[in-house]
Amino acid sequence: MSILIKKAYILDMVGKEPNIKIGDIFIRNNIIEKISENIVCDADDVIDATGNLIMPGLVNTHTHLPMSIFKGYKDDRSLMDWLNNSIFPVEAKLESDDFYFNSCLSILEMIKSGTTTCNDMYFGTEKIIEAIEKIGIRANVSWCITDDSINDKIEKTREYFKKYNVADSRIKVLVSFHAPYTCNPKTIELCVNLAKELNTYIHVHLAETLDEENIIKEGYGKSPTEYLNDLNVFDVKTILAHGIYLSEKDIDILKNKDIGISHNPISNCKLSSGICDVTKLHKNNIKVGIGTDGSGSTTTLDMFEEMKCTAYLQKVNTLNPVAIKAYDVLKMATIEGAKVLGLDKEIGTIEIGKKADLIILDLNKTHLFPLNDIVTNIVYSANGADVRTVIIDGNIIMKDRKIYSIDEQELYKKVDNICKRLL
Amino acid sequence: MSILIKKAYILDMVGKEPNIKIGDIFIRNNIIEKISENIVCDADDVIDATGNLIMPGLVNTHTHLPMSIFKGYKDDRSLMDWLNNSIFPVEAKLESDDFYFNSCLSILEMIKSGTTTCNDMYFGTEKIIEAIEKIGIRANVSWCITDDSINDKIEKTREYFKKYNVADSRIKVLVSFHAPYTCNPKTIELCVNLAKELNTYIHVHLAETLDEENIIKEGYGKSPTEYLNDLNVFDVKTILAHGIYLSEKDIDILKNKDIGISHNPISNCKLSSGICDVTKLHKNNIKVGIGTDGSGSTTTLDMFEEMKCTAYLQKVNTLNPVAIKAYDVLKMATIEGAKVLGLDKEIGTIEIGKKADLIILDLNKTHLFPLNDIVTNIVYSANGADVRTVIIDGNIIMKDRKIYSIDEQELYKKVDNICKRLL
Repeated sequence: MSILIKKAYILDMVGKEPNIKIGDIFIRNNIIEKISENIVCDADDVIDATGNLIMPGLVNTHTHLPMSIFKGYKDDRSLMDWLNNSIFPVEAKLESDDFYFNSCLSILEMIKSGTTTCNDMYFGTEKIIEAIEKIGIRANVSWCITDDSINDKIEKTREYFKKYNVADSRIKVLVSFHAPYTCNPKTIELCVNLAKELNTYIHVHLAETLDEENIIKEGYGKSPTEYLNDLNVFDVKTILAHGIYLSEKDIDILKNKDIGISHNPISNCKLSSGICDVTKLHKNNIKVGIGTDGSGSTTTLDMFEEMKCTAYLQKVNTLNPVAIKAYDVLKMATIEGAKVLGLDKEIGTIEIGKKADLIILDLNKTHLFPLNDIVTNIVYSANGADVRTVIIDGNIIMKDRKIYSIDEQELYKKVDNICKRLL
Repeated sequence: MSILIKKAYILDMVGKEPNIKIGDIFIRNNIIEKISENIVCDADDVIDATGNLIMPGLVNTHTHLPMSIFKGYKDDRSLMDWLNNSIFPVEAKLESDDFYFNSCLSILEMIKSGTTTCNDMYFGTEKIIEAIEKIGIRANVSWCITDDSINDKIEKTREYFKKYNVADSRIKVLVSFHAPYTCNPKTIELCVNLAKELNTYIHVHLAETLDEENIIKEGYGKSPTEYLNDLNVFDVKTILAHGIYLSEKDIDILKNKDIGISHNPISNCKLSSGICDVTKLHKNNIKVGIGTDGSGSTTTLDMFEEMKCTAYLQKVNTLNPVAIKAYDVLKMATIEGAKVLGLDKEIGTIEIGKKADLIILDLNKTHLFPLNDIVTNIVYSANGADVRTVIIDGNIIMKDRKIYSIDEQELYKKVDNICKRLL
């Protein structure tokens, strides 16, 4: 299996400043084998990308894939009202196949908007994995552990870890527990031990809301970050979703550990959680990627929207228009996200020897013209609909906006039935 | 000339809560003549809108149309650096035809993303009007007056006012002056007198930055709002762009006047100006519409992006997820914007007798599925690319994303040449 992409603007995301040149890319199996001005060779697929841009696929560092059905469901409510009265009662009724079809819908939306890797945390994960395999996205997955759901999830994590965490696998299994306020010290210790046993990452929500901070301070007399630190969570490589409420002391703890943060700006806005100070994290050399969170809270899974929101919030929150630049944001959504997930040796840039996770954007659009600065246009004006073609692990998953691995209309019918049954 | 649109979801934007029903709309000349479940009659154009949504066209309450060429040009800089070293030197070199072609590009981008009305403030306005007439958008226009450019602009305003401010005209001429910090009291008095003479609106930037507030306080010992009020600006109907730095006293002044505010959230974020407290303005019954500002500061002219940003900022700024709801935001972008511009008797809702300014959105998109709440999906997940068809003043300006009134590729070439000459 080989693909030759011709005459594209190539944005490799390698350097400290944007590097764009027109050229060809040759992919053999799942690897980028050649990048050059004019490649002449046979290939199974030849894509003419004249006037298009190739860049690394977007990396979504925090998702809840089966939540697609909650898009717009009893929205614009306060968090606790929304969770307790809208989400939790329905989640309790989800059946096995629902996890599969709902996840397919989220994955479809992500691929159509240029996301090639996601980092998921939910339950029913065995069916989520089926959806990931069916459509062909790259993904980290985990069974989200809370105090009342431990043993079965730990077993599943072990079992699937053995199956998937092997060389060249597109799927990786992590350990996850929900949050400091839903997990007692014993639960967290079990998770830390499991992550150490498997030598894998922990994925956990942290410092998302003031409520969380107050609950942990009342319960344990320390911040949520201190709470996790005292339970040795950060002895393990950890992906922290949100990271809004972090004191100087919390940042001092985190900056010396092997942790990365998933910034989820739209979710944080829509749920009124607060603004993560990304610029401060960057100053402390803490890795920050960008995530969407689930469809229930963000409504959109389009990472181009998250990039815009990331830039807007940092600039207006600091009252400093150069607090973050377009290219910094694009790095967060690609190579920095890959670093947060520990996948930066495989993906996140366009380099010879890396996995072929690439997206091709159509630049011949009114809202992307003129091309004074392609990176600025991509971050501040592009949206998911500008993505023409998506290649993941050397497979063409979407070509000219058509996805071949699943029947879209059939999927909509399935999900519609689930909505009718549950909502 | 008549158009019959069949079997659409119709979102009329009339009531306090969303009202969506499936039905037909019949347009004769430029007027919505019938709205009903099943209209049987002859029409010059019949549009099957099954599975689509019809809603009022979006109203962009603050634009600078000729700035399209500045998209991505020396972006991510501080405001004064950007203006003084990137924008002003190039603006000084703009030639007559540049205003026309640059404006065509902005109008094209707006129509493709569902905007049917804009409220422009710039110079070279006679050529902007040519672009508006050529492509067919509805627009308010004005010659932006500053201290060093008065007489000619006042004459032009008078001359074009007589020509355009007549019954059934799609173009209206307003008076505009730039801002408190670029206009001395004498200039402002001339503008107020002109607006009174013509009985038209004033369009002016106000309370955009802390710098502006400091300059006026140092110069006149009062806030920018007090400064304008003492010069009797608010005796005239006025459209205020930005309205970020408004004290309680300022709001007390404004709430008793016939003024409306254009909230321009993306520009305010990207230039790090600050966050306009829309919820407070609403509590004081001040009309608020949504604007993009020019392409130079926002990069995108897609009002769907502005709607998202409006919601995000209000929710996160107040830490209250119900501070503003999706439908409130959609009203700001339609009927409330029309009220700000004084056009609400003509446009902003779908009602019998109103002007036919309508957009048709394709709902059969992954990111808009499932349809638990169409309004939520439109505000939080739709983007300009979901707009299929645009009707303005009873004319089909875009059909299935094809615009017939201008040759797009030819326009790109023209603008490209302007960029090569100037940038």
